Amino acid sequence: MLDPLDVTPPDRVPVRRALLSVSDKTGLVDLATALHEQGAELVSTGGTAKAIADAGLPVVAVDDVTGFPEMMDGRVKTLHPRLFAGILGVRALETHAAAASEHEIGWIDLVVVNLYPFEDTIARDGVTLAEAIENIDIGGPSLIRAAAKNHAYASVLTDPAQYPAVIEELAASGDGSLGLATRRNLALQAYATTARYDAAISGYLQEQDDFGGTVAATDADGNPTGETLPGFPPTFSRGYVKERDLRYGENPHQRAAYYRRAGSPAHLLGGVEQLHGKELSFNNLLDLEAARAIARELDEPACVIVKHNNPCGAAIGDDVGQAYARAFACDPISAFGGIIALTRPVDVAAAEALSQQFVEVLFAPSYDDDALEILAQKPNVRLLRGDDAALRGLERLDVRPVAGGALVQDADSVVIDRATMSVATRAQPTDEQWRDMLFAWRVMRHVKSNAIVYAKDGATVGIGAGQMSRVDSARLAVEKAAEHGLDLTGAAMASDAFFPFPDGLEIGLRAGITAVIQPGGSMRDELVVEAADAAGAAMVMTGRRHFRH
Amino acid sequence: MLDPLDVTPPDRVPVRRALLSVSDKTGLVDLATALHEQGAELVSTGGTAKAIADAGLPVVAVDDVTGFPEMMDGRVKTLHPRLFAGILGVRALETHAAAASEHEIGWIDLVVVNLYPFEDTIARDGVTLAEAIENIDIGGPSLIRAAAKNHAYASVLTDPAQYPAVIEELAASGDGSLGLATRRNLALQAYATTARYDAAISGYLQEQDDFGGTVAATDADGNPTGETLPGFPPTFSRGYVKERDLRYGENPHQRAAYYRRAGSPAHLLGGVEQLHGKELSFNNLLDLEAARAIARELDEPACVIVKHNNPCGAAIGDDVGQAYARAFACDPISAFGGIIALTRPVDVAAAEALSQQFVEVLFAPSYDDDALEILAQKPNVRLLRGDDAALRGLERLDVRPVAGGALVQDADSVVIDRATMSVATRAQPTDEQWRDMLFAWRVMRHVKSNAIVYAKDGATVGIGAGQMSRVDSARLAVEKAAEHGLDLTGAAMASDAFFPFPDGLEIGLRAGITAVIQPGGSMRDELVVEAADAAGAAMVMTGRRHFRH
Repeated sequence: MLDPLDVTPPDRVPVRRALLSVSDKTGLVDLATALHEQGAELVSTGGTAKAIADAGLPVVAVDDVTGFPEMMDGRVKTLHPRLFAGILGVRALETHAAAASEHEIGWIDLVVVNLYPFEDTIARDGVTLAEAIENIDIGGPSLIRAAAKNHAYASVLTDPAQYPAVIEELAASGDGSLGLATRRNLALQAYATTARYDAAISGYLQEQDDFGGTVAATDADGNPTGETLPGFPPTFSRGYVKERDLRYGENPHQRAAYYRRAGSPAHLLGGVEQLHGKELSFNNLLDLEAARAIARELDEPACVIVKHNNPCGAAIGDDVGQAYARAFACDPISAFGGIIALTRPVDVAAAEALSQQFVEVLFAPSYDDDALEILAQKPNVRLLRGDDAALRGLERLDVRPVAGGALVQDADSVVIDRATMSVATRAQPTDEQWRDMLFAWRVMRHVKSNAIVYAKDGATVGIGAGQMSRVDSARLAVEKAAEHGLDLTGAAMASDAFFPFPDGLEIGLRAGITAVIQPGGSMRDELVVEAADAAGAAMVMTGRRHFRH
Repeated sequence: MLDPLDVTPPDRVPVRRALLSVSDKTGLVDLATALHEQGAELVSTGGTAKAIADAGLPVVAVDDVTGFPEMMDGRVKTLHPRLFAGILGVRALETHAAAASEHEIGWIDLVVVNLYPFEDTIARDGVTLAEAIENIDIGGPSLIRAAAKNHAYASVLTDPAQYPAVIEELAASGDGSLGLATRRNLALQAYATTARYDAAISGYLQEQDDFGGTVAATDADGNPTGETLPGFPPTFSRGYVKERDLRYGENPHQRAAYYRRAGSPAHLLGGVEQLHGKELSFNNLLDLEAARAIARELDEPACVIVKHNNPCGAAIGDDVGQAYARAFACDPISAFGGIIALTRPVDVAAAEALSQQFVEVLFAPSYDDDALEILAQKPNVRLLRGDDAALRGLERLDVRPVAGGALVQDADSVVIDRATMSVATRAQPTDEQWRDMLFAWRVMRHVKSNAIVYAKDGATVGIGAGQMSRVDSARLAVEKAAEHGLDLTGAAMASDAFFPFPDGLEIGLRAGITAVIQPGGSMRDELVVEAADAAGAAMVMTGRRHFRH
C-alpha cells in the first residue's frame, strides 16, 4: 500500500485555491490579482478578505469553508480541519483523496500568511506583558508550518518580499503553477520564520519576571542583591534576521553577513549612522564591538583604540582630543589602521589630531560640523555616529559557539566597586594610584588572557595580551613601553588573574610600577605580597578574576 | 468593554479537563492517574488514549469532542476549533464564555503534548528526506503554542521530565489546581521547545540539496567546484539543548552551562567518555575545542597543547610520545596545566612522559590499559576518550555573537594544497622545508591574529600569538624560543597575513629561518621577497590570508 513516504512530489503544482490571511497588507492586492487572473479561488479572513474584495476581486470567507464562525476576538478562526486537511492532504494517495471528497474538502495549494508583529510589539516602549502575549499568533504559524510540511503540493508565503518572484513564476508557467524548487525553498523560509518567531517569544518570556526564566542574584554570602539574573534553561533558541551582506568575512575567501537577533531591543548597528567612508567590513564590526564595549566602561571623555580585537591604547582626558593623543601614544605602530571609539562629541582639535593617522573606523556620539569636514577629507575612513546607552547591559548571557553546541555563561559584567577590594601591602595606594589601578582594571577586563595592563595618569602605557604565560604578557608590555619611549615609573599594573609566583609582578616592579591590582587567591599570595612590600609598592586584591578568551 | 488585555489571570486554575497526545509515553499513566484522581476529564488521541484506557482510566476520544474524524494518516486530528477555542478562550470574558456555550465547547485547562521526534529521526543513519518530513509535527506545536499563549488559564506540558512536579502540585493544592507561576514557567518552556523544534527543522532543510539553502561553490575563476556551501538566508535560528551545568564560567563569579545544538549530528562532547579525573570546567571545554580543532588538521601521530585558547606547542612524530615531547619543548612554562590532544592511542611510553607534567585535560582516541593505569595515578588529570571524525567539517558556518546580533561567515576550512601555492624567491624550498612550512601553516591557522609560527622538523619552535602588531608576534616567538633553548636555524616561518614591510620577516631571518610561508599580496611584496633573497631563504605565497580573532 502506498503511504506518504512513497509519493514522488510533482514537479509543478497549479495554484487552484489559495488561503490568504495577512497582518501586513503590503503587495496583497497585486498578489491576489495575479492569483485571480491565473484562475485561482481566493479564500480569506477578516481584514484580508475585505482588502481583496475592495480591489474588486471575488473572495470566499473562511467561515463559509469551515462552516464554523470566527470567535473569541479572532483567537480562533483558521484552526479547522477543513482548511488543514486541504493543506496537508497527499493528493496522490487515494485514501487522502477519498477523505477529502467525503468531507467536501478542497485542496489548498498556496498559503499566504504573515504573523502578528510580535517582535515590533515588544520593541515598543512601555509595552505590557498582556499586549505582548496578545500579539502571539497561533493560527498563522500553524497554517505556515502545515503548508511547509506538505511542500510536495503546497506553497507558502510569509513575507511580501517573496510575492514578486512568485507572481512572475505564476505568469511565466503558462498554467499558473509553482515548481518544486520554489515550493521547497519557500518551505525552508517558512520554518526559518516560525523558528525565529518562537525564539523571539521565548527570549522575551525568559526575561520577564515571574516566568521562572530568571533567578534572584545573591552576593558572595548568599544574600539576595535585589537583581535578577537569566537562568540556564533546559532549552533555548536564538533567531537571527539578516541586516546586511558583507563583502567578505575575516578573510577574503570567506563569505559573510551581519544579523540582528530577533526580539533584541538593540544591536551593534542599531541606530548607528555612517556619515562617511567605505563599507564596513567583517573585521571592522568585530573590532567595533570590542572598542565600544571598552568605551562603555569609561564615563569620562575617553578614547579606545582596538586592533585585532584587542585594545592597543586607551585613555581618559580633559577632552577626547587629549584622550586620543594619550591612547595613541601607548602603541603608535599598532594603532595604525585601528578602530577608534570616543565617548564625547568630536571637536576640531580631536579631528585634527585624528586626521594625522590612518584610522579605519571612528565611532563617536556626534561630530561638530567643522570636525566632520576635516575628517571627511580622507576618502576611506569610516565615520560612525551612534549611542551606546542601548547596548549597556543588553547581553546578560555570553554564548560561545563550539563544534555542534555552545558554551553559555553569565556575561562578565561585575560592577567595579573599590569598597569590595582590599589592600594587601604595607603601602596604602594614593588617590592617583587608585585612579590608575581602577582604570587599568576596566581596560584589562577586555584584553584577551593572559592580560597585563600598565596605566599611568589615566592612560594605558603598556598592554600585554593573549599570551599563554602571564610572565610573557608582563614582559611584552614592558618591552613595548620601552620601544615607544614610555616610562613606567610610578605606573599601576593590572593582572586579570592572580600571580602564581612573584616573577610576573617583579617584571613590573623592575620597570618602576608602584601599584598593582590583581584578584589574589594564589597559594603563594604571601610571597607575591612580600615582593610588593620589598619594593614599597601598594597591592590591591579584588577577589574577582577576569579571564577572557 | 472588557477585552483580553484587561483581564487579570487567576492565581490558581483547577484542572477540570486535560488534552493528552504524546509520542513519548514515559510517565503518561502516572500523570493520567493523578489527573483522574483530582477529578479531571481526560481527552486523548489514538495511541495515547489506548494507553490511558489500558490503565483502567476513563478517557474521551478527541473525535467525540470535535465530531470530526482523524484523517489522512493522522496528519489531521487535533486541528479543530472545538479544541482550540477550549484552550484559547479567556474564561473571564462574557463574550468568550457565551461563544463556548453556544458551540458546546468545554474549557481545556491542561495540554500534554510531546512532539514527533524530528531531531531523533534526522540523527539516524540513512534517513530519507521523506522520512524527515513525515516526522514534522503540525498539530502538536499548534496545541502547545495555544496553551502557552493562554497560560492565564491553561497549563502545557511538553516533556515527561515536567510531570512529577506537576503531579505533586496538583496533589498539594487541595483542589487539583496549578498556580500562575507554574503556568507561566511552563509557557516559557513551551515556546522554547517549539522554537528549538523549528530551528532544527529549518537547519535540516537548510543543509538539503534543492531547497535553495545552499549555493554551488566556485573556484577563483568562477568555475563550479562541485561542492555546495551554505547560503546566508534572510533569517535563521539555532536551538540549544542543555547537556550539563558547569561549576562556573570563565571566572568563578559567572554561572555557566554546556548546550548541544538541536539537530546537529555531533557536538564537542558527543561520544566523549571521561575515564578519569575531576569535572570538566568551562575553560577546559573552550581549550578542548581549540586543541581538537588543531589536532584534526594533523593526519600524523601528533600532539597539540593549548593554553588560554592558543596553542603553546604542536608537533608530529613517529608516535604520540615523541610528538608530545617535542610539542612540550616548544614552551614548557606555558604547557604547565595545558589541555592536550593526541591523534593516536596513548601507549605506556607516552603515558610516562605525560605523567611528568601537570596536565589539566588529555584527549585521545584511546588508551592502552597500562597507559591508563599510569595516567590515572594523578587524581586530577581529566582523561577523555573520543573520536574526531564526526566533528570534521561539521560547522560550515562560523557564528560570532556580538551585542544584539551575530557576525556569520563561512568557516575557514580551506584545504591546504601545495599545488595552489607559488614560490616567490630564487631559492626553491627543499622537501623538508615544504614539510615544515605546511605544518606551520596548519597550526598557524588556529593561532589568534596576528600570528607567527616557527617550525622545525615537524614541531613548533616558536609561536607568537594575539599581538596587535605583526612585528611583535614575530619577535615574541623568537624571544621565547631563545628562552627555552630552541635554535631557529633552518626553521620555517609562517605568517597569517602578508608582511606589510620586510621588518617582521627580518626578525625571523636574523634568528636563522631559511623558509617562510605567507599569503603575499602586500604593495611591498617586492621588498619582502628581496629581503628573503638577500638571506638566501625560500618564500612561498599561498594567496590566502588566515586571520582569526
